Amino acid sequence: MFRKSPLQDRRGSMANSGRDRQYEEDIVITSRVRMARNLEEYPFPAKIDAKQSERLINTIKDTVFDKKGDMADRFLYFNIPNLSPIDKMILVEKHLISKELVESRRLSGAMISKDEKISIMVNEEDHLRIQSLMHGMMLDEALDVCNDMDDFLDKKIDFAFNDRLGYLTSCPTNIGTGIRASVMMHLPAIVMTGYVRGILEACSKVGITIRGLYGENTEATGNLFQVSNQVTLGMSEEEIISNLKNIVRQIIEQELVLRDDLYKQNTYMFEDKLFRSLGILRSARIISSEESLKLLSDVRLGIDMGIIKDVKIDTINVLSTIIQPGSLQSILGSNLGNMERDVGRAEILRTKLRND
Amino acid sequence: MFRKSPLQDRRGSMANSGRDRQYEEDIVITSRVRMARNLEEYPFPAKIDAKQSERLINTIKDTVFDKKGDMADRFLYFNIPNLSPIDKMILVEKHLISKELVESRRLSGAMISKDEKISIMVNEEDHLRIQSLMHGMMLDEALDVCNDMDDFLDKKIDFAFNDRLGYLTSCPTNIGTGIRASVMMHLPAIVMTGYVRGILEACSKVGITIRGLYGENTEATGNLFQVSNQVTLGMSEEEIISNLKNIVRQIIEQELVLRDDLYKQNTYMFEDKLFRSLGILRSARIISSEESLKLLSDVRLGIDMGIIKDVKIDTINVLSTIIQPGSLQSILGSNLGNMERDVGRAEILRTKLRND
Repeated sequence: MFRKSPLQDRRGSMANSGRDRQYEEDIVITSRVRMARNLEEYPFPAKIDAKQSERLINTIKDTVFDKKGDMADRFLYFNIPNLSPIDKMILVEKHLISKELVESRRLSGAMISKDEKISIMVNEEDHLRIQSLMHGMMLDEALDVCNDMDDFLDKKIDFAFNDRLGYLTSCPTNIGTGIRASVMMHLPAIVMTGYVRGILEACSKVGITIRGLYGENTEATGNLFQVSNQVTLGMSEEEIISNLKNIVRQIIEQELVLRDDLYKQNTYMFEDKLFRSLGILRSARIISSEESLKLLSDVRLGIDMGIIKDVKIDTINVLSTIIQPGSLQSILGSNLGNMERDVGRAEILRTKLRND
Repeated sequence: MFRKSPLQDRRGSMANSGRDRQYEEDIVITSRVRMARNLEEYPFPAKIDAKQSERLINTIKDTVFDKKGDMADRFLYFNIPNLSPIDKMILVEKHLISKELVESRRLSGAMISKDEKISIMVNEEDHLRIQSLMHGMMLDEALDVCNDMDDFLDKKIDFAFNDRLGYLTSCPTNIGTGIRASVMMHLPAIVMTGYVRGILEACSKVGITIRGLYGENTEATGNLFQVSNQVTLGMSEEEIISNLKNIVRQIIEQELVLRDDLYKQNTYMFEDKLFRSLGILRSARIISSEESLKLLSDVRLGIDMGIIKDVKIDTINVLSTIIQPGSLQSILGSNLGNMERDVGRAEILRTKLRND
């Protein structure tokens, strides 16, 4: 009755070849590093006025788009208050800018590299937020990209820096390196088994926060969690990254053990759940964003575990983004009601999942 | 946003061509007539002893299988107490014999025609139960078949008959013609809208009973109901049939109106429900008989309404029978546990629904 778990085969080989990067790729969807920086000559954004904001934005733009530098051709500029609501939504859904930047009433801007790996937000909680976002477990690479951009800007701009404290920031939790590093993790087994509460508590004790998909105060939809460092003061950039990587590896280990447990406990029930979710995505005529993300999480798990073979992980990655309200409206048109959006979403899901 | 209901097209043409038989075929799955008969020379089954039972069974067998008559080659004989539990279950699931016959501790037998349209049960609640079962709305035809068989037996056997009361039976509700006529109806819209209670009450006032799939005290699984006459005394056979047909037509009319209402109220939600059910049947890895019947009911409704086009109604009819425990065990083997049966059922559903 019981078959060999597909995880077992893969874990056997993992033991031989050391740490298998595939697991990290499966469970860590994206890695992100961001640096908070402020300019000495301006008040913090909470106190900045419109004129100063405009001058601040122009200073940064002039630096990045300086034709003599090597950044000018790599970036696009977005005047945030001038963007349409849908365009704002899309940038947030793609994690290229923060919700806070969009919701702020200050003049603000964003420079985003054409490959979408670097964003520079101006006049968010700090004057500058330099962010690098990459697929998979790429914290070191994302840190390098941020450091390069930081070095580039530092040549032209005087950042607020204190020899004892490090970089000065609006919120004390960012003082020091000004770095926050985070990974988005897919943790269905940890959620299914109810271990998520224990993980949350354990992490908070070692200075790590776990939150939902869109940062603070958002719920974890589709079993996706943002795991990030809580403090930056008194630690080097490398210590922050290595501390986070350490915790992330432990969470991955836990998630893998629980996937294996669930599979072995009742293989048929487990597979049934995943295949039914795929079946619903392939046949629904009306579906919410939240339900879609929940079902896509099951399909992702099925692909990771070698149970679902006729869907590519890239399809799931693409769908997880384009079924969200902003991206969806940019595809289907902007004046859709809720129901029409849910109907359009179902059609996109059916089409993309059938084509595989 | 709203499209024309597929029912509307069909109902328009119905008005022109008079009563459209297709609706009866959609909603009335099978028709059944059975006659209760007792032999004068034996006590009723409640009082019969083993020796008398054996003699009774032999008398009927000798009559049916008499080489000089024209029934001998058309029938198979089943010695009920000797059948395996699975074979008993299959005959009940196919509605060829009653649960009561199988559960009785008396010696009992059944003669079933090879085309499965006629069964003669011996030593059920009455000495003889002659039954004719046909697909679709075929009450008149089923009555004819029963009458022919009754005439055939009547030539050789003395039935207990009273000039004032008619045929005498074990239960007073069967006295008179001894006829019970019933149809199995598929009434998803009446169930979804909650009208089922009103229909039950209205029917009981005009001498019509509505019960679940396997007769008295069973629940309606998969929105399937047995609608039958309650009394036989003081009415002719023709009156019984025509009274039942009359009520059945009114229930069909009600079901069609409610299907149309549900469709128009929210076409997308309605279609979504039906397509999701098909999606689950096509992808589940473990599924109970009850859930299967519920989902198959949705697919049947989708086919009836022209919404689901790639599944044949015959497939649904076949599946509704073979996914039941007895038939399933005869396909998969008899010593399966509950879970293995549910896994096998899911596999059969996936295969049959994919092949369409």
